[in-house]
Amino acid sequence: MRLSEGVEWTLHCCLTLGWLDSDKPVSTAKLAATFELPPAYLNKRLQALVRSGILASTPGVHGGFRLARPPEKITLMEVVAAIEGPENAFRCTEIRQRGAGAERPAHEYKRQCVITTAMRKAELAWRRELASQTLADMMATAPQAAAERTRNWFERVGG
Amino acid sequence: MRLSEGVEWTLHCCLTLGWLDSDKPVSTAKLAATFELPPAYLNKRLQALVRSGILASTPGVHGGFRLARPPEKITLMEVVAAIEGPENAFRCTEIRQRGAGAERPAHEYKRQCVITTAMRKAELAWRRELASQTLADMMATAPQAAAERTRNWFERVGG
Repeated sequence: MRLSEGVEWTLHCCLTLGWLDSDKPVSTAKLAATFELPPAYLNKRLQALVRSGILASTPGVHGGFRLARPPEKITLMEVVAAIEGPENAFRCTEIRQRGAGAERPAHEYKRQCVITTAMRKAELAWRRELASQTLADMMATAPQAAAERTRNWFERVGG
Repeated sequence: MRLSEGVEWTLHCCLTLGWLDSDKPVSTAKLAATFELPPAYLNKRLQALVRSGILASTPGVHGGFRLARPPEKITLMEVVAAIEGPENAFRCTEIRQRGAGAERPAHEYKRQCVITTAMRKAELAWRRELASQTLADMMATAPQAAAERTRNWFERVGG
């Protein structure tokens, strides 16, 4: 099981946009240069965050991305779901109904499989934890030096 | 993010072996037939559980698999880890140290990135939940009818 690299990329971009705290959109090229990421791939992931209402995008030469909401209104869960999709990590394919299980009456399968229930419970704990952490929380725990250096870098490159 | 189908397969096999509660090993062919699974692929996954000390295997014509420990000593976390490996779902590639970050002194990176910390915290909640649930718990919550039908089926097919 592995989360896509887009999760790391977009979380860092959100943190950067939060630190810049500007109404001026930041271009994909600049965000890509900040982390030496491939611009086209990064842009695709950032567009996914636009579709989820986490980022707002402005088209055109001076266009780019900014946070669509205040950092305290953006949770890690939303960013992860924007990239990974809404599906559960554990996907039950109901193998219990096949083979030996095919003989059993249908009403026995109305209740969710105990394995699915147990796996969902764990995934819910993961989701709950991600939903409880906001971009503002990360900005508050990150070293202030990192925020300042990011702002300085963008000033220098004309961000 | 998706857990491999092997997680569903092997958890069901463990549940079946727990219900049969026999010292006699159950062959891959029979376990595969129970859920209409491809025997060779299933066998590969069951071998992973042997390597993790969850199942014991007996070679030979009358060989097969049985639980290596009592069901209350087998957690969901162990089965999931046997199939998925020990790696974290979120893999930090330290993109913060690239591009704009390359100029910063190395000591600034001694502390774990806030994003990694936040993602790890959520994953820990998932792992803790999986570790708290045993095969015995699942056997206790599953419908008794399912256990009985499984035992009857194995008696009929000569399990």
